[in-house]
Amino acid sequence: MPNTLSPDWLKKSVFKPDIFKGKVVFVTGGAGTICRVQTEAMILLGADAAIIGRRPEVTQKAADEMAQLRPGAKVIGVGNTDVREVKSLVAAAERTVKELGRIDFVICGAAGNFLSDFNHLSSNAFKSVISIDLLGSYNTVKACFPELRKNKGSILFVSATLHYYGIPFQTHVSAAKAGIDALSNALAVELGPLGIRSNCIAPGAIAGTEGIDRLLPADMREKALSLIPAQRWGQTEDIANGTVYVFSEAASYVSGTTIVVDGAGWHTSNGAANNAVYPQMLIAQGNDTPKL
Amino acid sequence: MPNTLSPDWLKKSVFKPDIFKGKVVFVTGGAGTICRVQTEAMILLGADAAIIGRRPEVTQKAADEMAQLRPGAKVIGVGNTDVREVKSLVAAAERTVKELGRIDFVICGAAGNFLSDFNHLSSNAFKSVISIDLLGSYNTVKACFPELRKNKGSILFVSATLHYYGIPFQTHVSAAKAGIDALSNALAVELGPLGIRSNCIAPGAIAGTEGIDRLLPADMREKALSLIPAQRWGQTEDIANGTVYVFSEAASYVSGTTIVVDGAGWHTSNGAANNAVYPQMLIAQGNDTPKL
Amino acid sequence: MPNTLSPDWLKKSVFKPDIFKGKVVFVTGGAGTICRVQTEAMILLGADAAIIGRRPEVTQKAADEMAQLRPGAKVIGVGNTDVREVKSLVAAAERTVKELGRIDFVICGAAGNFLSDFNHLSSNAFKSVISIDLLGSYNTVKACFPELRKNKGSILFVSATLHYYGIPFQTHVSAAKAGIDALSNALAVELGPLGIRSNCIAPGAIAGTEGIDRLLPADMREKALSLIPAQRWGQTEDIANGTVYVFSEAASYVSGTTIVVDGAGWHTSNGAANNAVYPQMLIAQGNDTPKL
Amino acid sequence: MPNTLSPDWLKKSVFKPDIFKGKVVFVTGGAGTICRVQTEAMILLGADAAIIGRRPEVTQKAADEMAQLRPGAKVIGVGNTDVREVKSLVAAAERTVKELGRIDFVICGAAGNFLSDFNHLSSNAFKSVISIDLLGSYNTVKACFPELRKNKGSILFVSATLHYYGIPFQTHVSAAKAGIDALSNALAVELGPLGIRSNCIAPGAIAGTEGIDRLLPADMREKALSLIPAQRWGQTEDIANGTVYVFSEAASYVSGTTIVVDGAGWHTSNGAANNAVYPQMLIAQGNDTPKL
Ligand SMILES: NC(=O)c1ccc[n+]([C@@H]2O[C@H](COP(=O)([O-])OP(=O)(O)OC[C@H]3O[C@@H](n4cnc5c(N)ncnc54)[C@H](OP(=O)(O)O)[C@@H]3O)[C@@H](O)[C@H]2O)c1
Ligand SMILES: NC(=O)c1ccc[n+]([C@@H]2O[C@H](COP(=O)([O-])OP(=O)(O)OC[C@H]3O[C@@H](n4cnc5c(N)ncnc54)[C@H](OP(=O)(O)O)[C@@H]3O)[C@@H](O)[C@H]2O)c1
Ligand SMILES: NC(=O)c1ccc[n+]([C@@H]2O[C@H](COP(=O)([O-])OP(=O)(O)OC[C@H]3O[C@@H](n4cnc5c(N)ncnc54)[C@H](OP(=O)(O)O)[C@@H]3O)[C@@H](O)[C@H]2O)c1
Ligand SMILES: NC(=O)c1ccc[n+]([C@@H]2O[C@H](COP(=O)([O-])OP(=O)(O)OC[C@H]3O[C@@H](n4cnc5c(N)ncnc54)[C@H](OP(=O)(O)O)[C@@H]3O)[C@@H](O)[C@H]2O)c1
Repeated sequence: MPNTLSPDWLKKSVFKPDIFKGKVVFVTGGAGTICRVQTEAMILLGADAAIIGRRPEVTQKAADEMAQLRPGAKVIGVGNTDVREVKSLVAAAERTVKELGRIDFVICGAAGNFLSDFNHLSSNAFKSVISIDLLGSYNTVKACFPELRKNKGSILFVSATLHYYGIPFQTHVSAAKAGIDALSNALAVELGPLGIRSNCIAPGAIAGTEGIDRLLPADMREKALSLIPAQRWGQTEDIANGTVYVFSEAASYVSGTTIVVDGAGWHTSNGAANNAVYPQMLIAQGNDTPKL
Repeated sequence: MPNTLSPDWLKKSVFKPDIFKGKVVFVTGGAGTICRVQTEAMILLGADAAIIGRRPEVTQKAADEMAQLRPGAKVIGVGNTDVREVKSLVAAAERTVKELGRIDFVICGAAGNFLSDFNHLSSNAFKSVISIDLLGSYNTVKACFPELRKNKGSILFVSATLHYYGIPFQTHVSAAKAGIDALSNALAVELGPLGIRSNCIAPGAIAGTEGIDRLLPADMREKALSLIPAQRWGQTEDIANGTVYVFSEAASYVSGTTIVVDGAGWHTSNGAANNAVYPQMLIAQGNDTPKL
Repeated sequence: MPNTLSPDWLKKSVFKPDIFKGKVVFVTGGAGTICRVQTEAMILLGADAAIIGRRPEVTQKAADEMAQLRPGAKVIGVGNTDVREVKSLVAAAERTVKELGRIDFVICGAAGNFLSDFNHLSSNAFKSVISIDLLGSYNTVKACFPELRKNKGSILFVSATLHYYGIPFQTHVSAAKAGIDALSNALAVELGPLGIRSNCIAPGAIAGTEGIDRLLPADMREKALSLIPAQRWGQTEDIANGTVYVFSEAASYVSGTTIVVDGAGWHTSNGAANNAVYPQMLIAQGNDTPKL
Repeated sequence: MPNTLSPDWLKKSVFKPDIFKGKVVFVTGGAGTICRVQTEAMILLGADAAIIGRRPEVTQKAADEMAQLRPGAKVIGVGNTDVREVKSLVAAAERTVKELGRIDFVICGAAGNFLSDFNHLSSNAFKSVISIDLLGSYNTVKACFPELRKNKGSILFVSATLHYYGIPFQTHVSAAKAGIDALSNALAVELGPLGIRSNCIAPGAIAGTEGIDRLLPADMREKALSLIPAQRWGQTEDIANGTVYVFSEAASYVSGTTIVVDGAGWHTSNGAANNAVYPQMLIAQGNDTPKL
């Protein structure tokens, strides 16, 4: 996957280049669709970056490509790192400090997702998503805390909007993201006096992601799109722009909140409504043999 | 610990006796302070009950005492059951069906708590609370699902209010309870078409509990109390009454919501405000050597 | 319109008769569909009642019918009272105290509604709904405050769920009900120390009301119904039951919150989703000549 | 009052100059403390502006001063305009279009405030705040709608955080701002398909404003400040920066949400907690002769 943004993006951007000069961002899931573009924007605007993931080749390749975005940019790919293991994240943070000198910004973006009704969502599957999304986010902040404290840094959790209402087929992700929002708020309160800010960004339906391309059945796409007030899918670039704002000096008094970037979509576009088969599919699946 | 309620409670209760006759309630944490009294009220009003916990003697003793509340009441104590293990809950549910005939109502009440700032809250400690409160609640519903589906039952999660704002020293419980609220809402949507209701009850500061007696420093108690608009602590009986309402026929159209029973306390009484030492204590603890 | 409830309701009710004996409830909109049944339940359970409205005959007739529900029940109809005029409400409260002896409970239920997109909703029309729903509710509490204070009474605002998301064609009611929720919370905080509780009840889609029968186009009804997780419309009786709970001793620690009674409907059934014509209708109407 | 910002601000700003070149912003309350600085930033970044208020001299003087910020900037002061009168706003909008050519952005900022407990807050006083804040905001959008529609413009309501919990002495503003949030969300849904975005900005405690300087008693200031996690008051510049983000192309997918800029303050700093006299003062004032 090549870069989504290019140096041209700087021309049309409302932000000045160099606003993140000398800063370092640490991004779990930074080789993934959305978080990669958040990172690309940060790099274009002067930051160096460490992107964290499990797959070493994918992570390394993405890092190499992203380093092309800005002359002199340093981007390291830290593979073989599972956010469920705090020790592996500590190693990643240590390597980042060693190679890039510091950590100023942390993006907790690593997450898993798939669709399942409750009856077919095993306890293990539920646990797996909670572990990656919620515990993994906690571990990430833990591992970066010494640097965040030293540099009066800033944390951004990648959340979602699906728990604002009660979306079907996503109990696991809803619970995980609601937990993340609460964690972010509590950290904003606890770490504020240490000079650290904590916020969430909640993307709506973003084009080109697994969530839309793989999980949303093709025949529901048109209806789903029409229900988004903005009448377009989100772009990864929209999330990147929100990220830049939150980390920038312009938002130095923004903490303990969520930047929702969804074209007003959550107000209108819940899962049940999009889904031509509510409640039939849930009744059918709910009557299956229970899965533990 | 003897029973909190007694047959006399029926006289002053606004509810008719026998409204839960022939019904069975399955309660994790049912030997604990709050959930025990929820269960006592259900028993007094006609239900049989299974209470679930890890400590076998404590659980058995509570069950025996509670069985005294109503002539003919059947109450079983299912010890050696950890809500983190779905299989142990399945066994508990099967024993309940075998001995009590059915399950109509499920209370997910088992939970852990302690105070810690972020810096001293290890990844493991955070995980432990998420596992008991959030994963444990999921597992409980999983284990009871066949019965809930058959009997068009009703689920009640015991949540809290502390994640409505961003309370310090409670990142773990805040994240867990926020996750539970989202889970409850998602289940209300998914299981509604199967005839199952799902709700939360959110107690405020309840007198006689660990939360107030052990966790709230004595010298903050008077100020904390004065900040509760109702000007009194909650009683376990208040939570029991809310529980009865939610499970009763009177609430047959109530699903996907939270019954807050807190004397309007959360609007005024957040942790930082009560805490004479905000932000000093957080700054001091935040400057300690980080704990993983 | 005859009574919806009858003395038979007492037999199936979970509540004991007489729980409101000696109490008086003051209800604006008490001759309307929902609030009338709230009042009927209170009367059946022992309360006397004053129902308030503009149309004198309608109000009087309803009062006379409702007085039949319980031998000895006193129900007065106070017509010619517009909630937009605090003085007319003061007169209504004074008459209530004079004829019924006291006021313990207040239901702020009077409201107006109609559908309109923003472009066709004049400033005056918007103001009219805000004035009846929000200012009218404030005025009602004002007029009853001396009695509420004396009797340590309880306030119930009839709110809605439509502002939890962003429903189209209802900007006016959304704004009004959101204002009411905030008012209720602030009063819970302010009046709690005086012994007064303040709460909201939020009905979902209730069968037999103007909202469903007149405002919801017939061809959208089946889809709308299927999107409610409970798979049925709400009944006025459901709202009556929630009302009884909130005013009863069982809820003496419930304040500053909203009892949602909607079959989990708001999580799934927003207006845009129900509406086969989103966004087409809004685009067409938005392109009309603006109306002031 | 001189300008708060100066051309130097452009140097340290993260935003590129000229991003609002050729655009026009229409600001009610634009001569007031916060909204003036929002407007100053927009002007510095290329916009022309119309500021609206009742006092003609104050409004004109502010406009003249603000025009000094950028060579070529056009800023008109439209006095004698009360947001409670939609017709006076229509005249203001027409003058703006005549003199500045167009309207792209609307800031609904005009508001009134004062402290009062419920017992001393007359129906008229409550109505007055609702009329300025909520009805006035509606009227403002009404008057600018033809231009917003033509130019695919963007609306920003100046809200607050005090209704997120239940602050005492502010029932009127809480209800008004909650209404505004709901209005903004509903407009985001309705006007999204016309290409119009609608959002709120919620300032925390901003230094130098009436809210902090006049309304917060001096002896509560230190405690109040310590309870803000960021450990500083907000600056008008913080709100200006959030405003720039929301109106900029960077936020083109941001609609139907609130940008909270409060240093995480609302999570910790509610009015009751700050107030050494809760609940005593409310009890005393609540026992006074009721005021209608
Ligand atoms: N897609 C949407 O429309 C949408 C909407 C709302 C919110 N979001 C959120 O946005 C974020 C990014 O979503 P996306 O669709 O761009 O994701 P994605 O492309 O699926 O990427 C996920 C990334 O997370 C990494 N990851 C997953 N599990 C991990 C683990 N255990 N340890 C370390 N890294 C792990 C993956 O790398 P490895 O596999 O190499 O580990 C991958 O790089 C997520 O938090 C998602 O919940 C997305
Ligand atoms: N206390 C308050 O004021 C307050 C306020 C808001 C919410 N709440 C919530 O109310 C509920 C009850 O609180 P409480 O103070 O009454 O609790 P408690 O007295 O501490 O009782 C907790 C119960 O949970 C059981 N439990 C804990 N971990 C378990 C596990 N892994 N597996 C099975 N059972 C387990 C315990 O039994 P074993 O040790 O034998 O397993 C015990 O019976 C909790 O959900 C709490 O979060 C309390
Ligand atoms: N229908 C639903 O599904 C639904 C859903 C959510 C919430 N709600 C809420 O539930 C409540 C009752 O709804 P409903 O459908 O039962 O209402 P309804 O039948 O239309 O009755 C409204 C009542 O309010 C009175 N009223 C209206 N304006 C008044 C004024 N200015 N002064 C005094 N009284 C006034 C009317 O009497 P007069 O005309 O004689 O004055 C009438 O008795 C309302 O607050 C509504 O917003 C309804
Ligand atoms: N101060 C804070 O810390 C804080 C916190 C949260 C939110 N806010 C919100 O931020 C906004 C600005 O607050 P501020 O403290 O900067 O206000 P401010 O200095 O008091 O200015 C208010 C402005 O509104 C105008 N205005 C008032 N009533 C009007 C009417 N009926 N018609 C037309 N214009 C009217 C006033 O001009 P004329 O008198 O000439 O009409 C004045 O320019 C308000 O919406 C406020 O609620 C403030």
